[in-house]
Amino acid sequence: MTAAATTRRDVRARLATARSLLEPPLRHAVRRLATPVRTVAEYHFGWCDAAGDPTDAGWGKGLRGGLTLAAADAVGGSAASAVPAAVAVELVHNFTLLHDDVMDHDQVRRGRPTAGAVFGDAQAILAGDALLALGLDTVRAQPAATAELCRALLDLVGGQSADVAFESRTTVGLDACLTMAAGKTAALIAAACALGALSADADADRVDGLRGYGHHLGMAFQLTDDLLGIWGDPAVTGKPVGADLRRRKKSLPVVYALTSGTAAGAELASLYAIPGASTDTQVRRATQLVEQSGGRDWARREADRHRLDALACLAAARPGRDGAAVLAGFADLATTRDH
Amino acid sequence: MTAAATTRRDVRARLATARSLLEPPLRHAVRRLATPVRTVAEYHFGWCDAAGDPTDAGWGKGLRGGLTLAAADAVGGSAASAVPAAVAVELVHNFTLLHDDVMDHDQVRRGRPTAGAVFGDAQAILAGDALLALGLDTVRAQPAATAELCRALLDLVGGQSADVAFESRTTVGLDACLTMAAGKTAALIAAACALGALSADADADRVDGLRGYGHHLGMAFQLTDDLLGIWGDPAVTGKPVGADLRRRKKSLPVVYALTSGTAAGAELASLYAIPGASTDTQVRRATQLVEQSGGRDWARREADRHRLDALACLAAARPGRDGAAVLAGFADLATTRDH
Repeated sequence: MTAAATTRRDVRARLATARSLLEPPLRHAVRRLATPVRTVAEYHFGWCDAAGDPTDAGWGKGLRGGLTLAAADAVGGSAASAVPAAVAVELVHNFTLLHDDVMDHDQVRRGRPTAGAVFGDAQAILAGDALLALGLDTVRAQPAATAELCRALLDLVGGQSADVAFESRTTVGLDACLTMAAGKTAALIAAACALGALSADADADRVDGLRGYGHHLGMAFQLTDDLLGIWGDPAVTGKPVGADLRRRKKSLPVVYALTSGTAAGAELASLYAIPGASTDTQVRRATQLVEQSGGRDWARREADRHRLDALACLAAARPGRDGAAVLAGFADLATTRDH
Repeated sequence: MTAAATTRRDVRARLATARSLLEPPLRHAVRRLATPVRTVAEYHFGWCDAAGDPTDAGWGKGLRGGLTLAAADAVGGSAASAVPAAVAVELVHNFTLLHDDVMDHDQVRRGRPTAGAVFGDAQAILAGDALLALGLDTVRAQPAATAELCRALLDLVGGQSADVAFESRTTVGLDACLTMAAGKTAALIAAACALGALSADADADRVDGLRGYGHHLGMAFQLTDDLLGIWGDPAVTGKPVGADLRRRKKSLPVVYALTSGTAAGAELASLYAIPGASTDTQVRRATQLVEQSGGRDWARREADRHRLDALACLAAARPGRDGAAVLAGFADLATTRDH
């Protein structure tokens, strides 16, 4: 087995441990809700079916909560004291998923109909609102943690709002798109890491270092996600070939191509401007054009640059040896994952 | 001028003062948001038009924030120390309005197109999310205030979720409907009053007393609202005659009628079951039937009972003489208002 494969296996094992540690308090938090919104939230987490009967469909990878626990561990904190922050981060992350699905009219999440598809948009919006409130309530004892999470929320909502606005614009600048991704994806991952450090009462420079690590990890994660949205193997990602191009998404490699000033970029712009559903031929051509304009190489380089920046920030947080290895493993996974 | 009219004038003056005190910090909080979601929030508050140009359309009565200030004053607190809590309450209230309008597909709010109608549902959902985060961030320095506001939020969302579920049910019990109203309307008003007391570092029994006052005030407010939704003067309320019956809303007097076991209640149930838009004749008949089944008298009696219960809770909070008069005035206004 290669070193990278070992790291990946270790990080996945770490995430599995985090998931089993976080699930009981997550369930406990959601049980504070009254029905029917409680059923909607429990359905979203995969803990019950549409009729409210118990199931175990799985509530995701637990990446963000896992990062909170790993960040706490890296600066000498205990998992026990980091659990509330990690639970808060997962509650907030799931709030964003519930609202995202409503806003995007998505019908499937984690292989099941979305909460909105089952219970209606109104109940899905309310379940998201409830998880947001629960998340902030979970860290209320530490005002600095509330401030960290609220700041991330404002960045996150700002990024989502820009993303929605981009959909109806024909031109989007690369810088604006990067700022959007920093808000939409990196802000909560940055906060997840900072919250881990805060739960360990770490010094401000260590908190800052871990926040920076999380920011760059989040950017690397998003760039890799965008690459998989174009070149991901449908057998592994579970999405159709060129999924993002088919939906004419203005993902980062696409915006790079569109703003590259190349002939390929101009041709991609005309392809994106054709009304109606994309044909397979168009999707194949768009894929070539993003590559020809340099969008694929740029995104790979940027993802790797952010991975290295993440490691530099991590070093500034003076992590313990084991913690450093685990967080470096997370950074590696973010850029080498295949789904 | 009658004593009631004097009280009403005093309370309205108090609210106008509260509004002018709260507007600058509210604007300041919203300015933390990035565009475009900031523009959506500012539009909702009436501070700009759809193009983002400044206007002054007014952001509502400021009832909840005004209650926070009045509650603080009643237990010897200063307005200055109560302002953050009052701002938080107004931010949270406006979060609920933004999401309510999306969920109800409402097109008009405060005489203008809703934020959703102008900017789309996604931006309106995000603006609501942002105001919720800002609201909780505003009180983060006082964990007890965060707990109070989060508890109210969970009750509120629970009430809204029940309300949405009621729409697709043919029978709704009166108790379930009262619990729904306690969540949807009374929870935030109760928290508004408790937060005022908390900002004044009042003893737990005074906080409890003011929370109870707010709960009963909220219930009286909702019952009066439901009466106005049927018998309100269109010239004063700005809504069509029998607005709630036209939309076949299961408001409290209606649910009383439907569950009254009277012939009038049974006839109302059949009227509500007719598919398609209501005719004027049907609305007139439904109005008579709610009255004949005792729904109007019951709602009036209940509103007055809650007003008296509010005053009893208020007394338990041992308010100063001026503060007691003002809060009694609020309770009076809640049950005697005409719009």
